[in-house]
Amino acid sequence: MTYCLAIKLNSGIVFAADTRTNAGVDYVASYRKLHEFRDLGDRVFVLLTAGNLAISQEICEWLQRDLNSNDGRESLRSFQYPFEVADYVGRTSRTVQDRHRQALTASGVSVGATLILGGQIQGQPHEIFLIYSQGNFMQASADTPYLQIGESKYGKPMLDRLVSADLPLSDAARLALVSLDATIRSNLTVGLPVDLAIYDVAAARVVEELRLDDSSDYLTRLRDGWQAGLENAFQALPPFEWEAEST
Amino acid sequence: MTYCLAIKLNSGIVFAADTRTNAGVDYVASYRKLHEFRDLGDRVFVLLTAGNLAISQEICEWLQRDLNSNDGRESLRSFQYPFEVADYVGRTSRTVQDRHRQALTASGVSVGATLILGGQIQGQPHEIFLIYSQGNFMQASADTPYLQIGESKYGKPMLDRLVSADLPLSDAARLALVSLDATIRSNLTVGLPVDLAIYDVAAARVVEELRLDDSSDYLTRLRDGWQAGLENAFQALPPFEWEAEST
Repeated sequence: MTYCLAIKLNSGIVFAADTRTNAGVDYVASYRKLHEFRDLGDRVFVLLTAGNLAISQEICEWLQRDLNSNDGRESLRSFQYPFEVADYVGRTSRTVQDRHRQALTASGVSVGATLILGGQIQGQPHEIFLIYSQGNFMQASADTPYLQIGESKYGKPMLDRLVSADLPLSDAARLALVSLDATIRSNLTVGLPVDLAIYDVAAARVVEELRLDDSSDYLTRLRDGWQAGLENAFQALPPFEWEAEST
Repeated sequence: MTYCLAIKLNSGIVFAADTRTNAGVDYVASYRKLHEFRDLGDRVFVLLTAGNLAISQEICEWLQRDLNSNDGRESLRSFQYPFEVADYVGRTSRTVQDRHRQALTASGVSVGATLILGGQIQGQPHEIFLIYSQGNFMQASADTPYLQIGESKYGKPMLDRLVSADLPLSDAARLALVSLDATIRSNLTVGLPVDLAIYDVAAARVVEELRLDDSSDYLTRLRDGWQAGLENAFQALPPFEWEAEST
């Protein structure tokens, strides 16, 4: 399983993803699910992937091959609007899935891959899209400025309580890490290290990209800080009526 | 959907359940999923139910009918050990499901019901059991002193961080409400009112039983307190390296 998250802020986009992949409980490995495509000229795109790992990797390979070719074919560089790029990535995903569907389905293996594409074409607003296995896609909204794929439930409550589009990028990055860490703690199929990338609209580039694992001092302090904060919040909850009576 | 939770403390058991039931999104209603069986003599049992509502209700009716009959048949009063009671409830559940399985399956409706049974027979330790649809069952452990059924993921991270068997009953009850409330906030199929029951080993009875809905002053204060506590925890998280540099 996987947990990937993108938060669209007024000032940019925060991307976060775990790296655990597993086929059953025996074959557990670590693979990158956060992919920044580089040297795109007037645009920046980051892709987060969940689902069948072989399919996800092949989608990335195809997108990169399209970029490398100079024969006028469609690529991440081709389009004027972000939604057209999402549509192109969705079509690529569907094509890759179609190639393997029959063989995988015959073996009882899911062919699906769900993606989050985020970034900006200069002159257009920055956007994040959730691209379904079927190739169709949806955008985040001002009311719900985040998108999740994979094992999304454990890390959702703190987002619903704390996220807003006007958070500074570093605050949103901390929130994303807390959401990832809650999921990692409660679900074995989501695991460290965590990849984090921050796209800054003002700089028009990914200004921070980091990987945090068990040996990360920052991650330890973040976990300890959140644990202490939750304990304080818990201790400060109001007493029940019967407790007030007994004091 | 449903979310029910039982926490086994050294000093007793906290039970909590939402009341939302839905068949699709059109037929949404409120039904009790926390059932205390009364007048059991030397024992107390509370049942939490998730799954097919008609099946869950019929299981409760059968358990009550067995209690009301005086013909020597098995009932919640019959057994010496808590696990034997869990086994009896599991068999009852399976029998009820078997009665309806063919007709429901033919209509594409799930016949399953998952249960949490908790309580105490005097002279035996208090226990909580998760009873699967298949009728088999498992107990909570000292390491993981809680059991969940239904939509369990949203409310799990705060349990994993804050629960322990030595919490006072009222603290555990607050934690259960926070776990329920996070789920209600993030998932439409789990909804108010919430039922809460507290079994106290020392008193050998359910000492508190309450229902909290949107008009509950206590629930409002609990929600506001938790929200404020989370915001404080979030604000106090450690800065990233690049933030320290820029100050």
